[in-house]
Amino acid sequence: MIYRRIALIGMGLVASSIALAAKRHGLAERIDGHAKSASTSELAVERGLVDKMHATPEEAVDGADLVVLCTPVSAFGSIVERIAPFLGKGATLSDVGSVKSHVIKTVAPLVPEDVHFIPAHPIAGTEHSGPQSGFAELFEGRWCILTPGADADQEAVDRLAGFWNAMGAQVDFMDADHHDLVLAVTSHAPHLIAYTMVGVADHLRRVTSSEVIKYSAAGFRDFTRIAASDPTMWRDVFLGNKQATLEILGRFTEELFALQRAIRTDQGDVLHKYFRETREIRRGIIEAGQDTALSDFGRRKDSENQP
Amino acid sequence: MIYRRIALIGMGLVASSIALAAKRHGLAERIDGHAKSASTSELAVERGLVDKMHATPEEAVDGADLVVLCTPVSAFGSIVERIAPFLGKGATLSDVGSVKSHVIKTVAPLVPEDVHFIPAHPIAGTEHSGPQSGFAELFEGRWCILTPGADADQEAVDRLAGFWNAMGAQVDFMDADHHDLVLAVTSHAPHLIAYTMVGVADHLRRVTSSEVIKYSAAGFRDFTRIAASDPTMWRDVFLGNKQATLEILGRFTEELFALQRAIRTDQGDVLHKYFRETREIRRGIIEAGQDTALSDFGRRKDSENQP
Repeated sequence: MIYRRIALIGMGLVASSIALAAKRHGLAERIDGHAKSASTSELAVERGLVDKMHATPEEAVDGADLVVLCTPVSAFGSIVERIAPFLGKGATLSDVGSVKSHVIKTVAPLVPEDVHFIPAHPIAGTEHSGPQSGFAELFEGRWCILTPGADADQEAVDRLAGFWNAMGAQVDFMDADHHDLVLAVTSHAPHLIAYTMVGVADHLRRVTSSEVIKYSAAGFRDFTRIAASDPTMWRDVFLGNKQATLEILGRFTEELFALQRAIRTDQGDVLHKYFRETREIRRGIIEAGQDTALSDFGRRKDSENQP
Repeated sequence: MIYRRIALIGMGLVASSIALAAKRHGLAERIDGHAKSASTSELAVERGLVDKMHATPEEAVDGADLVVLCTPVSAFGSIVERIAPFLGKGATLSDVGSVKSHVIKTVAPLVPEDVHFIPAHPIAGTEHSGPQSGFAELFEGRWCILTPGADADQEAVDRLAGFWNAMGAQVDFMDADHHDLVLAVTSHAPHLIAYTMVGVADHLRRVTSSEVIKYSAAGFRDFTRIAASDPTMWRDVFLGNKQATLEILGRFTEELFALQRAIRTDQGDVLHKYFRETREIRRGIIEAGQDTALSDFGRRKDSENQP
């Protein structure tokens, strides 16, 4: 038991996974929830994710010692405005948003003085959304980044870190701006690029959708997974991490143009050198346990893919 | 038995998979091979991939009724120059190259009149290379595109199509130029984009490699798989399909710039609409059996990922 009573605001993939993991590991006496849509609330009740779903966020947080904002980040401001008067003295307010500076700028001024605001970002997810997608193992072996302010209460920070550890995650601490830059590289730019490539394929007239689908195993299908992620969440991420995302995309197009030029001018050696170097990073990711070594992400269950 | 004697020139992932599949399904009386490097030849012998590895391509093709070029495409010209005098009357010469117009332009003029040249491209692969990576199931459920010339011998074409069918692939026929455009979309542009994104992450100074690796599960790691593909093969693909690849990359940067502008100018509705539409294609790919419906490509073996 790490918290007495947890309130989850929003009930998508991450919230439902927190609910299941917290229950499995016995991390709270009670879990309350709120979701804007009635169908989400019903699904959460059906799956038995929480002890009670509440009609308003105010009701859900009343009496909680941990409140976690799990909606798309654009909703954080209005939610915190509503719940602020109901947050208990000494309670911790956290979140799971993929951007941190923007969230801190929006939320911090609204948090009562006797409440600990400790922003968090679990680096975990799948392409599926909604309360039906959550599972207790989502955070196992993944990282959760906390970006507490310089004046944060150490005990409250340790407690939240312990909560994430207990759900199987490793915890890192980072400055919010640096978090946003790191995630622009490892998440936000790759997502925008994947969305764009899938959009381009969709918009071509000379190649049909049926052709794109049939021959997608040649590489394209890998992009479609992350381009199937939740549109609202990702709209908010890009608008909430504008500067770092645009900076990385600028670097990306710069290098893409250099490689396009190498293709146009037959500089095979430039291409070969570039492609050799990029192999190393994948090796590092596999060694760090952040991806499978099985070929094709282990999609096939054949003789080759038995480790 | 579809062919009496098959010769495979080059012994990487695709050739070794053909050898294993042809053997498993009894598609040839005998399989001969040639590889440029001694270590590749030794590995092929160790795995028992072929009946015999030969020191020269000339020796390997002597007496074969099907010869398949499986090296990087830049080697095709010089190989066919060498083997042309040894190709038997009525034999079929094919290949597995990822580009087709360039291959036809290079190879067709060198092929003797009494030999059937039928270019092919199996849309199958993994990020692993070499004779140790092949497996008999590689082509199962995948497509193989044949691009025979207008004057091709129908019987020889049907026989080659039957060979691919027997290894588990479905066969499609296409004009070579159209093949190159389709593959530019579903394979070549995505690979260059993935290589570029991984290169950008590698070249940043403000984000360390260790950070990129630790937080790669947020999307980036998906790109690293295809950016771990064979550098020589991919150099040749880009140089061999220059025009279509650059055309698609041009469309890609055009759309990327439009989305960057939408981010910069806070046009959330434009982003949301774009991200909603791209979900459809993934659904199509899964319904067509070209990718798994399991979340995260089925990387995890947990409760959620039991279909």
